[in-house]
Amino acid sequence: MAEPRATGSGRAMHALLRELYPICRSITGDGVRQTLHVLERHLPPGLQVHEVASGTPVFDWAVPAEWNIRDAYIADRQGRRVVDFREHSLHVVSYSTPVHRWVSRAELEEHLHSLPEQPDLIPYRTSYYNPTWGFCLAHNQRQQLLDDEYEVCIDSTLDANGSLTYGQLVLHGESEEEVLFSCHICHPSLANDNLASLVVAAELAQWLAARPRRRYTYRFVFVPVTVGAITWLHEHQHTAVPRIRHGLVLSLLGGPGNFTYKSSRQAQTTIDRAVAVALRDADLGGFEQRAFSPYGYDERQYCSPGFNLPVGCLTRTPFGEFPEYHTSADNPDFVQPRQLKESWRVLRRVCQVLEHNYAYQNLSPFGEPQLGRRGLYKHLGGGLDGQQWQMALLWVLNQSDGQHTLLDVAERSGLEFRLLNKAARALRQVGLLTKA
Amino acid sequence: MAEPRATGSGRAMHALLRELYPICRSITGDGVRQTLHVLERHLPPGLQVHEVASGTPVFDWAVPAEWNIRDAYIADRQGRRVVDFREHSLHVVSYSTPVHRWVSRAELEEHLHSLPEQPDLIPYRTSYYNPTWGFCLAHNQRQQLLDDEYEVCIDSTLDANGSLTYGQLVLHGESEEEVLFSCHICHPSLANDNLASLVVAAELAQWLAARPRRRYTYRFVFVPVTVGAITWLHEHQHTAVPRIRHGLVLSLLGGPGNFTYKSSRQAQTTIDRAVAVALRDADLGGFEQRAFSPYGYDERQYCSPGFNLPVGCLTRTPFGEFPEYHTSADNPDFVQPRQLKESWRVLRRVCQVLEHNYAYQNLSPFGEPQLGRRGLYKHLGGGLDGQQWQMALLWVLNQSDGQHTLLDVAERSGLEFRLLNKAARALRQVGLLTKA
Amino acid sequence: MAEPRATGSGRAMHALLRELYPICRSITGDGVRQTLHVLERHLPPGLQVHEVASGTPVFDWAVPAEWNIRDAYIADRQGRRVVDFREHSLHVVSYSTPVHRWVSRAELEEHLHSLPEQPDLIPYRTSYYNPTWGFCLAHNQRQQLLDDEYEVCIDSTLDANGSLTYGQLVLHGESEEEVLFSCHICHPSLANDNLASLVVAAELAQWLAARPRRRYTYRFVFVPVTVGAITWLHEHQHTAVPRIRHGLVLSLLGGPGNFTYKSSRQAQTTIDRAVAVALRDADLGGFEQRAFSPYGYDERQYCSPGFNLPVGCLTRTPFGEFPEYHTSADNPDFVQPRQLKESWRVLRRVCQVLEHNYAYQNLSPFGEPQLGRRGLYKHLGGGLDGQQWQMALLWVLNQSDGQHTLLDVAERSGLEFRLLNKAARALRQVGLLTKA
Repeated sequence: MAEPRATGSGRAMHALLRELYPICRSITGDGVRQTLHVLERHLPPGLQVHEVASGTPVFDWAVPAEWNIRDAYIADRQGRRVVDFREHSLHVVSYSTPVHRWVSRAELEEHLHSLPEQPDLIPYRTSYYNPTWGFCLAHNQRQQLLDDEYEVCIDSTLDANGSLTYGQLVLHGESEEEVLFSCHICHPSLANDNLASLVVAAELAQWLAARPRRRYTYRFVFVPVTVGAITWLHEHQHTAVPRIRHGLVLSLLGGPGNFTYKSSRQAQTTIDRAVAVALRDADLGGFEQRAFSPYGYDERQYCSPGFNLPVGCLTRTPFGEFPEYHTSADNPDFVQPRQLKESWRVLRRVCQVLEHNYAYQNLSPFGEPQLGRRGLYKHLGGGLDGQQWQMALLWVLNQSDGQHTLLDVAERSGLEFRLLNKAARALRQVGLLTKA
Repeated sequence: MAEPRATGSGRAMHALLRELYPICRSITGDGVRQTLHVLERHLPPGLQVHEVASGTPVFDWAVPAEWNIRDAYIADRQGRRVVDFREHSLHVVSYSTPVHRWVSRAELEEHLHSLPEQPDLIPYRTSYYNPTWGFCLAHNQRQQLLDDEYEVCIDSTLDANGSLTYGQLVLHGESEEEVLFSCHICHPSLANDNLASLVVAAELAQWLAARPRRRYTYRFVFVPVTVGAITWLHEHQHTAVPRIRHGLVLSLLGGPGNFTYKSSRQAQTTIDRAVAVALRDADLGGFEQRAFSPYGYDERQYCSPGFNLPVGCLTRTPFGEFPEYHTSADNPDFVQPRQLKESWRVLRRVCQVLEHNYAYQNLSPFGEPQLGRRGLYKHLGGGLDGQQWQMALLWVLNQSDGQHTLLDVAERSGLEFRLLNKAARALRQVGLLTKA
Repeated sequence: MAEPRATGSGRAMHALLRELYPICRSITGDGVRQTLHVLERHLPPGLQVHEVASGTPVFDWAVPAEWNIRDAYIADRQGRRVVDFREHSLHVVSYSTPVHRWVSRAELEEHLHSLPEQPDLIPYRTSYYNPTWGFCLAHNQRQQLLDDEYEVCIDSTLDANGSLTYGQLVLHGESEEEVLFSCHICHPSLANDNLASLVVAAELAQWLAARPRRRYTYRFVFVPVTVGAITWLHEHQHTAVPRIRHGLVLSLLGGPGNFTYKSSRQAQTTIDRAVAVALRDADLGGFEQRAFSPYGYDERQYCSPGFNLPVGCLTRTPFGEFPEYHTSADNPDFVQPRQLKESWRVLRRVCQVLEHNYAYQNLSPFGEPQLGRRGLYKHLGGGLDGQQWQMALLWVLNQSDGQHTLLDVAERSGLEFRLLNKAARALRQVGLLTKA
């Protein structure tokens, strides 16, 4: 039997990301299915793949027709493909309607998208709810399209009898209370957005699955953005949704920038505070906390007023704030193994906070207990005893009146959550502490 | 029929200010009556002028004797008026007792007030509750009074059978709940303090009167400072006072400085927050918010502990913080039409916030509603959709759980209140929103 | 009969400090008794000296054996004392077990403590709960110990039938509610730590004893650090402890640095706020407020979760943050009379706040009362009346709705507590104010 691979390998995450990169995903279609199929091999057992029929009403929305694409190109009179979908999935506007005919250059121009200020990059464009077709290409390439007419071909289908696909994985814990991790799975060949989060989430699931015990049930949801999250909420509104205690939308976890946490709508919930402490403790060179806003990723749905779930959004540099965003420069080279590993470490810390965030009762609360005779204190006094370990013991003892959780103590003391948890364990072992 | 003049004209406000400027006002007397008479022509119909008899007990005070003045001067042996009340109403200490005799220069000096550090300016002085007489003059002028004796004449009367005069205008709204605007009307020839606020208040009243509907009843009160406000409170303690929901003391609204808002005693009431948002939205180059203090204008009375009304004080540069304060340099040139117009605009925004500050209920609260099919969203995705209008729609939808008013949304989102109100109207029109 | 000395003399406090300085104190033993004996002469009558038998269980601890020392030295072959306890009490590690024999230099080295970075200073070291012996000496002196062997002698006793000694003084007030001042009394020849606080506390007790009335009962506790405070808490857990309303641990009150106040565990209790206002009002060049932490002096015990008393810690520069800390440089020269006097003044202000912190009711709460006719206001208006006295009158009147104490008013107004108290007294005298 093969040695189980240690979780948290940046190289392994990056290899999976490269495998997923070429697939053309959209909010429906085979790209999502294929992506879930590959992902399944890297997840703990139990991935469920759901298909929801096009046209199904989901709250204010309806599941859209299923879109698939086999081929697409712009060719010149010589039959040369001057823009070829097979070279890059970004070349086609997602959800383009089928087309195959000769068009004048003027007509073609109305269907082209490029970035004059980033002339070497292909932009990412979608048109989910407005039927049209279009190509995306580098502005430099566009400027070389000088012929009078071109053959355009988009061999796509929009199937009203299709379905929307999403995946989810549930790791049961001692409690039915759930922690939700949600990733969007609908972007084509974009590495940071959001393959990075898919592979980090998969690695986190592996780590959670390997733990001897889990306090919470963990649910990983891989959904197309917006309508996918709304569909998931609709299908689970009476089951999983009421059990969610903490949650995170994971996005853009592969780039080089510092972490940014966007608070849940409720703000200052346990998940908001747990992420802040995890980022502080991880000490990866600064991080930013932002207030909730109803614009962004699927936290928009989880935090809509009818649900108002304690779900925040963890990213590195937020969307739209790095030049590679939604362009062909968001490729596997932009996402380094070290960056994936850092993101995984932060999420591991978040889970550790959630798992160990108990309130304790000091069993010797009148004055300090004598730590020395229990081997928990150094002996020669008079010098400065500022060591973190002793501070952790003192903080846990002082705050453990049954009202303060370890997360409270971590915030008030400024000490690392893990160290406080270790101190709590040591104090429980010598009979000075019990769960409240 | 003449075209009705558009409200908010800085020139019209300034013309009215110049008309009012020469009148010698005090806390009682014909100056107040004359001022109200002029003001009436520029107000919507309905100004009430109240006379309260001298000696009437008003809480801890009694209405003072009525003071009037016909003439006053200091003359030399040659009969030349070296100081002449007819030239400037500031020349006489307000409430000076009558006097007419020859005095030595030494005695005269004890009754003179000037500003050695602003030697060209006449100061403003009063002696309401200590019977005495005095003259105010430029320090340079004072230094030329070298004769041995002078004739002093103050042809004033203090009538114990007189009355205190104040005006008020009530614009009824759909609700009996009231918004109070209070201006002091007792200062003589001082333009910024407080003719500017009188003319801005008159213009605001015109604008409110012209509105097709008013949610609130608006009450404009023009009172002598301190005893006038106390008299008004005494006379309305069982009628208007319990209906006041929001209020502002208006003062110094004509100077060139930035706006300053002094919070009500309660602090963080709706009016405090409405003014802050109005000033932020008006974007007139910075403004200052100050905590309540029991020193200042008539907010002292409205915020006395027995009333504790939600009444703040809006000024531009506060009293005592600009060199023209309480001197002859506070003249119509100091008050520019543009400044009056800005003040009017800020107050209009305040009223708009109060009128439209409702809590709404999102009628499609589970996930985001599909704005696209309602024509409220642009279609081609993938680019950055940061436009304010879409943000306004999303914020209103997200926060409308029946608990948050539009003012809450304006504060949390940082978006302009007017834009949010427009978004709320659009969402109501498509059936996504209703008043909570 | 001799004239009673005025309290608050820095010179008198410093003289007492010098008298106490040479005594070798520890957590038990004759040094504490001798110190209390000297202190008694400088306290108001009533000092109680308590002896608690070694071995007595006190919560999680037991009272330690009593330690006494008669002599100690390191001598060379020539019989010369190269380190001599008679020269400085710091030379012996406190609680050293007895020893008298020849040791090799190598063995001796294991029992020596010095400060290489402060080579001229003797450090302070203790070993209360780990039986060993040791000497402390200047690093320069240590480097001259080049002989092969030395005679070491520590003529100490550890008596399991001894006792732990502490002192307390209670000044009864009108109420049984108590204010606690606690000082540690266990350090040997260290002036700032903590003789300075002992002498300041003694002076404060004199001042309190001389007051015609005391609202609170004041309790001064002089205890060995940690086990002494725990012993005191054990002995008074059902008597004094439940009556403590406010308390301070006093330490390091003689050094030259700015004041630092460390909040109680509860934070923002009356004592926390009273100290902040006292330090602000004293205006001694800046002070620092720090959050509670469970490391420090005996606030660790008073703020343990079973007691959670409103007890903060007042020092000048905190422990470990000045180079003289726990060395022979913490001598009487480091503690200047002026510094002791400043500390006394701050504590006097704290007591004044506690004594006078009542909520009042304005008896003329509708509008401002007319201060002028009561002689509480100057007459000639129009100028700026910003004087502190009038502001104090206005603030007290405005806030006195029965809900706000004078401490609340001091915080909100920024005015000196004493001035507000004086204003409250004046307003009571004219019948405008009454205790709520």
